[in-house]
Amino acid sequence: MRLVRFTGKDGDRYGILRGESIRPIPAETLEDALQTTGSEAPEIALADVELLAPVERPRKILGIGVNYAAHAAESVSFVDTKAPQVQKWFNKQATSANAPFGEVHLPKVSEQLDYEVELVVVIGKHGRHVPRERAMEIVGGFCVGCDYSVRDWQKASQTMIMGKGFDTHAPFGPAIVTPDEIEDVSSLQLRSYINGELRQSGHVRDMIHDIPAQIAHLTAAFTLEPGDLIFTGTPAGVGAGHTPPKWLKAGDTVRLEIDQIGVIENQIIAEPETARIG
Amino acid sequence: MRLVRFTGKDGDRYGILRGESIRPIPAETLEDALQTTGSEAPEIALADVELLAPVERPRKILGIGVNYAAHAAESVSFVDTKAPQVQKWFNKQATSANAPFGEVHLPKVSEQLDYEVELVVVIGKHGRHVPRERAMEIVGGFCVGCDYSVRDWQKASQTMIMGKGFDTHAPFGPAIVTPDEIEDVSSLQLRSYINGELRQSGHVRDMIHDIPAQIAHLTAAFTLEPGDLIFTGTPAGVGAGHTPPKWLKAGDTVRLEIDQIGVIENQIIAEPETARIG
Repeated sequence: MRLVRFTGKDGDRYGILRGESIRPIPAETLEDALQTTGSEAPEIALADVELLAPVERPRKILGIGVNYAAHAAESVSFVDTKAPQVQKWFNKQATSANAPFGEVHLPKVSEQLDYEVELVVVIGKHGRHVPRERAMEIVGGFCVGCDYSVRDWQKASQTMIMGKGFDTHAPFGPAIVTPDEIEDVSSLQLRSYINGELRQSGHVRDMIHDIPAQIAHLTAAFTLEPGDLIFTGTPAGVGAGHTPPKWLKAGDTVRLEIDQIGVIENQIIAEPETARIG
Repeated sequence: MRLVRFTGKDGDRYGILRGESIRPIPAETLEDALQTTGSEAPEIALADVELLAPVERPRKILGIGVNYAAHAAESVSFVDTKAPQVQKWFNKQATSANAPFGEVHLPKVSEQLDYEVELVVVIGKHGRHVPRERAMEIVGGFCVGCDYSVRDWQKASQTMIMGKGFDTHAPFGPAIVTPDEIEDVSSLQLRSYINGELRQSGHVRDMIHDIPAQIAHLTAAFTLEPGDLIFTGTPAGVGAGHTPPKWLKAGDTVRLEIDQIGVIENQIIAEPETARIG
């Protein structure tokens, strides 16, 4: 199943994506949506709706740093690190969640905006102390995501979270693809294109810490809940890995693909008037 | 106003605490509760209810590291750091939120559980790009909080979040004390007692980065929302700062006080059977 959230003339809803059309389902929550047995509602053309982030308000967005060997090597140039023995986790803020085709802000406070294509795990069931051999039981599905990173802010503190948590900097989607749709997750290839130019390409099997290891480690400390997101790391080829660095500019198009999961695409725009008090 | 959430015979509700009694208010959300004009509902004795975390499900729990000079000095012994020029932020996970008198788990995976008394800022209004001179406008109130920290897990990764985010490790309360109740926040003294022994004592004015500076920095990157929590740092005297370290043990009582805000108290218990899949 390919589960989407979308907004159309009847408001925001969940639906099942098949080809170029969506069949709405009556689910109110992600948990209900993941358990749907389908619906008889009339189909709607994908072209007639706007896709939303497939989890409405994720409570946790976790990301793992330097989790592909080739990316770890290029990262030495811009973060003081090496491929970590211990998994290196950061949070993106709940407020960074964005739609799969949402606009992404080039921040007012930085010119070092970078892209990172990632396989995103959407947690479907509660999990605590989940052993690696049972880890996939709590996975609700997979998305394509971009871990947009503001490198100077990331680098300014070893904890990394300020550079990872800007508003709009966690688009994901286009659908939550349930595990039964995918024969072998490890074989999937991730690619990123900036204005049509291939920049990143890698396979899930090249992760240093695989998904079961990630879930086992995280749940040794805390509970994962339905709707929590795990950004599982990025392969080599990010902007900061080039000499000179290739930062994103307003007007750039970032297209991210993962085999069998789908495509998301974001336009980079100069941060609009976002100031707000109250 | 001292705003509490509590559970009694009519379920979970907000109320206003006065002395030893609570007057329930009909608010459903924190924003509504902060705007209450009071109620005529009959008072309930504080002793007859259980206080809950005063924000039901905080979406963001942010904490600043090494933000009191004396604590920065003692921290050199257990984290590879010095008083940072740039604010050093981490997340506690949404799932670490706990009630002001809730039990706190000594994790199965560590023996290095430590306490940190902190002034907690509860965000009351949305804020983005908030200048320091207007920062207090988005503050809904203050709580006492404990930034429980699992030192070996914290130290294992520079990003710190794994050691900060264990379930139950962010108790706060007892009430949200609105800013009008406090004449001078900077004069407040924070104290922690372990089994009655004074361990930490410091004043809010000794923060390296004050609350307006924190809000200005955070909102340069992302939106703060009502119910978000900011743990503003801890003074010297944590367990890890002693030689040998004084780790918390099952059975310990951790009592935390801040002048004019109140007291929270947690019993440390061995982590019970928490394993969960589904």
